Amino acid sequence: MINKLVAKIRKTNAPIVVGLDPMMKFVPKSIQRAAFQEYGETLEGAAEAIWQYNKGIVDAICDLVPAVKPQIAMYEQFGIPGLIAFKKTVDYCKEKDLVVIGDVKRGDIGSTSEAYAVGHLGKVQVGSNAFYGFDEDFATVNPYLGSDGITPFTKVCKEESKGIFVLVKTSNPSSGEFQDRIIDGRPLYEWMGEKVAQWGADCMPENGKYSYVGAVVGATYPEQGKVLRKIMPNTFILVPGYGAQGGKGADLVHFFNEDGLGAIINSSRGIIAAYQQEKYAIYGEDNYAEASRAAVIDMREDIAQALAAK
Amino acid sequence: MINKLVAKIRKTNAPIVVGLDPMMKFVPKSIQRAAFQEYGETLEGAAEAIWQYNKGIVDAICDLVPAVKPQIAMYEQFGIPGLIAFKKTVDYCKEKDLVVIGDVKRGDIGSTSEAYAVGHLGKVQVGSNAFYGFDEDFATVNPYLGSDGITPFTKVCKEESKGIFVLVKTSNPSSGEFQDRIIDGRPLYEWMGEKVAQWGADCMPENGKYSYVGAVVGATYPEQGKVLRKIMPNTFILVPGYGAQGGKGADLVHFFNEDGLGAIINSSRGIIAAYQQEKYAIYGEDNYAEASRAAVIDMREDIAQALAAK
Repeated sequence: MINKLVAKIRKTNAPIVVGLDPMMKFVPKSIQRAAFQEYGETLEGAAEAIWQYNKGIVDAICDLVPAVKPQIAMYEQFGIPGLIAFKKTVDYCKEKDLVVIGDVKRGDIGSTSEAYAVGHLGKVQVGSNAFYGFDEDFATVNPYLGSDGITPFTKVCKEESKGIFVLVKTSNPSSGEFQDRIIDGRPLYEWMGEKVAQWGADCMPENGKYSYVGAVVGATYPEQGKVLRKIMPNTFILVPGYGAQGGKGADLVHFFNEDGLGAIINSSRGIIAAYQQEKYAIYGEDNYAEASRAAVIDMREDIAQALAAK
Repeated sequence: MINKLVAKIRKTNAPIVVGLDPMMKFVPKSIQRAAFQEYGETLEGAAEAIWQYNKGIVDAICDLVPAVKPQIAMYEQFGIPGLIAFKKTVDYCKEKDLVVIGDVKRGDIGSTSEAYAVGHLGKVQVGSNAFYGFDEDFATVNPYLGSDGITPFTKVCKEESKGIFVLVKTSNPSSGEFQDRIIDGRPLYEWMGEKVAQWGADCMPENGKYSYVGAVVGATYPEQGKVLRKIMPNTFILVPGYGAQGGKGADLVHFFNEDGLGAIINSSRGIIAAYQQEKYAIYGEDNYAEASRAAVIDMREDIAQALAAK
């Protein structure tokens, strides 16, 4: 799957992943109205609204980008109906041949981590049958519990040719509270980066430079990104924090390798709620999907310019 | 909710939480057969089997213990049907007046963490209505992302009188890879403990000694538990790792305060799959629930003796 991601980035010339993190306040009124008319102002109604909203965006951007990243929390908040909408979104994106990164930030130990891995990336055995639960292509994983939490995921990834992105240095303001603390002269995130490179060394695809154990490093920390790029030369970096969280194209160049690869930049509300920005207001609420398409094209240009100026 | 937990521990004389972490290999053949007969060897069949299995255990132990802790991964692996079984289990345990600790280990940032908090502990707004998604009483939370990941949870806890348990020192063998690294002369888990105490200071219930921001510290690390007990005097500690993972009654005493409170010990397969142990084999597979009840009684005795000998 990491090779497919790289190939699709090359083909689209867009190291971009669109974060499908629907909040009700982003969903156009007409979509909400239709969903509530059918299901009432219920969890089912909300789930239908975010699913229809997602579908519009996916249809509008699927030829431009290699990947999407649905944030499961935004679905889980609507309980079971929300998770059904998550699954529908994953399935639909895969039909459109998009690589799906499940932003699930799961992480536990031993058989529990294995259950998460099986549920999100692999197959679960029921009697003599095996079933996919959610079947994303990649999942994000929290490493606070150490190798015991990671290796059950890499085992399933190996079997299924899938991958993970491990949190290393997150994009949020307080990420430094623990991640920046100095251990033997170096911040925790560097030790985490070393560990990711180590886990990744055992997880190289047959042909390809990049491991299927990736890392998450926030666009909001470009200097740290530069260091981590060197520590993890064969690690693909998923970079959140572009756009709404303050990261800019110029901040991104250090996340890429000399081959112009090695990073994929996420934008969520900057794309999916583009129509709410002054810059794209001309599209109007009902043409939210076209606004998203325009925002993807602008983002692609912003990154290309930054990389050209490197 | 923390006051309810304390009151129920006092009433039952059992600082015990039963981990409802069903694996198919624990579920008696007769329950599997009945479920597969109705739903086939499908995800729905598996979900029905684990739900019926849980129900038997809950019925057998609900008068003995204050709380249960369903591990969501064990349900999530069965996709949507599994999560429906999770929700049924949560609802049923609450009907039986058990405190439900959702072992979900969620954690993200800002609006995303808020979505998890809303989905698991609070209500989500849909138009003019508000709905509970999963409605556990407590949730476990991963703190690697810092305060940005925690405060959205404490906000919802305050509104709903619920609580969280933050991972501090986990019970697994590799937990030391990061958690034990030395920062300014002290291991990371101690700094995490300090932070939990700090978060908790803003989250005290009106009457009661213990904050509704708790901590997770593994029974397998009693020495660390002793230190953390002192660092977090008003923090309730959820202690996994007893039984199957190797923790013993005598290891537990340091997790308690002088008032005999301040900790709740989890046992999962040691209770729910007790019938598979030699000690309880006499019950037989079909009487698995009675075996679980016997195991709870023995565990209560083991802890009481250890505390008496303190």
